[in-house]
Amino acid sequence: MSKEILISEVGPRDGLQSIKSVMPLPAKKAWISALAAAGVREIEVGSFVPAHILPQLADTADVVAHARSIAGLTVAVLVPNLKGGEAAVKSGAHKITIPLSCSETHSLKNVRRTHAQMLDETRNIVALIRAQPQAQRPKFEGGLSTAFGCTLEGIVPADKVVRLAEQLMEAGCDEVGLSDTTGYANPAQVKDLVRRVRRAVGDHNLSGLHLHNTRGLGLANVVAGLEVGITTFDSSMAGLGGCPFAPGASGNIVTEDLAFMLEAMGLAAGIDLPKLLAVRKILSDALPGEELYGFTPDAGLPLGFVPATRSMAAV
Amino acid sequence: MSKEILISEVGPRDGLQSIKSVMPLPAKKAWISALAAAGVREIEVGSFVPAHILPQLADTADVVAHARSIAGLTVAVLVPNLKGGEAAVKSGAHKITIPLSCSETHSLKNVRRTHAQMLDETRNIVALIRAQPQAQRPKFEGGLSTAFGCTLEGIVPADKVVRLAEQLMEAGCDEVGLSDTTGYANPAQVKDLVRRVRRAVGDHNLSGLHLHNTRGLGLANVVAGLEVGITTFDSSMAGLGGCPFAPGASGNIVTEDLAFMLEAMGLAAGIDLPKLLAVRKILSDALPGEELYGFTPDAGLPLGFVPATRSMAAV
Repeated sequence: MSKEILISEVGPRDGLQSIKSVMPLPAKKAWISALAAAGVREIEVGSFVPAHILPQLADTADVVAHARSIAGLTVAVLVPNLKGGEAAVKSGAHKITIPLSCSETHSLKNVRRTHAQMLDETRNIVALIRAQPQAQRPKFEGGLSTAFGCTLEGIVPADKVVRLAEQLMEAGCDEVGLSDTTGYANPAQVKDLVRRVRRAVGDHNLSGLHLHNTRGLGLANVVAGLEVGITTFDSSMAGLGGCPFAPGASGNIVTEDLAFMLEAMGLAAGIDLPKLLAVRKILSDALPGEELYGFTPDAGLPLGFVPATRSMAAV
Repeated sequence: MSKEILISEVGPRDGLQSIKSVMPLPAKKAWISALAAAGVREIEVGSFVPAHILPQLADTADVVAHARSIAGLTVAVLVPNLKGGEAAVKSGAHKITIPLSCSETHSLKNVRRTHAQMLDETRNIVALIRAQPQAQRPKFEGGLSTAFGCTLEGIVPADKVVRLAEQLMEAGCDEVGLSDTTGYANPAQVKDLVRRVRRAVGDHNLSGLHLHNTRGLGLANVVAGLEVGITTFDSSMAGLGGCPFAPGASGNIVTEDLAFMLEAMGLAAGIDLPKLLAVRKILSDALPGEELYGFTPDAGLPLGFVPATRSMAAV
């Protein structure tokens, strides 16, 4: 009953953008290399946004160049607009995500653009990508943020999310993803919304969930996602970045706990758990004073634990 | 699609037995009353064990007497042997649980008894209960601890758990429960083991799971339990007691997060969430210096949140 699940590490982007410390480029490179060596196959390594807005990610082009040198690694980046898209294409990233906030209030506050304006940016990036030689075209995902609720608007109707997912696909995205930016999602909602969006855009066009652990439901929402066939989960090593609105609560779900859960469930994520846990040392050295989250790193692996990846390798 | 789920609060027993501080009797009474006022319908209020072993629970008889005075509350206690069973019956507790550790090594270390000896104690308690007038007979549960793995034995074979569940039912228990004492369980294992045990003892004879959050998978395991029809979940307010083997990791799953998740999922647990969150004040006042866990208490309820219990009440 083993099945492959992809963990997409977003710590170098979502984690680092949420903290004040700036991780030096050599540490970023070492972190990304160590994650890949522990079996992580996809990493969102940065964002192409103006350096004065996110100085933590100002070196994204250099980080992409390093990450691209790692065999077998899918190098992903986030871009808020065409300008970012141009930099991303130029950098040679394998995957580009544009976030479209389902809450228009949040979209205006976050990227100062309406839904219509963001869909325009999306179409422009699609045109740019299609103008590249076939072999060099990155995969382009529309990331539906605040899909499960918004701290400004409250409830985000599922119908609105479905409509925006359709519009992103019509604009030319290769696929869409659902993001619980605010940590509002619950397992019943995850199952319901995934089913609705898949009904509208097709099963193969929604494979990923980006979940936060703001209210402790992150891994519970992963289980719900697995139940309805989701195969890619974003997570952040050490839940890096925390959540400014919830002291002590991690932001993204914790990669270490997610990897432990999947491997324990027999869902091979390709991760070498002891190696992954050891990677935290790079974080604690490079980001002194930043809190590192996660339960499995403190508790350790269970006695007699056999991860799915190792048992598959043994077959 | 609303369905009733029972949260069985075990903080006054499992939480308090795991910390050094002794909560004074008046605080215990206030805590239990406040929990019940927030909608908690079942509370495990203590254990009948020698006071020199667990001084924190030496006043269990008095706590039971108080809890029994609260209308509509099911008052549960834990007993390790016949002597504890006698005290429990005398106290008038509505529900008694005897823990049988699936790992015999753990059983010997924890209660210094083999499986055969624990099954003897179980039969003796059954005889005692059946000697009571019908109206005064407490419900008697066999709690299969270390059912998902043991820190001493490692993997606990599912077949062994199934056999012990059958033996507990043959010994005369009214039902069995599965406990992840060590925080080893994963969602796939929860579904598998619940199905196997139910196949052996009947669906109605396994309704409850007792989960820990040692590796952060507590609520993920609840979702798995819900998928296979479990309707009662043990949890502890503020994850009280933590886990001595996992610094920073809570022991039992956190009642506040569990209640938020269930209510958000449309599974009415009967809980008034703002009232429940306010009860933490009693804990922080009565147990200065003890760490209180949970994500929802820090993050607060989502904007626009409508709990299942309130929406049902409005119908």
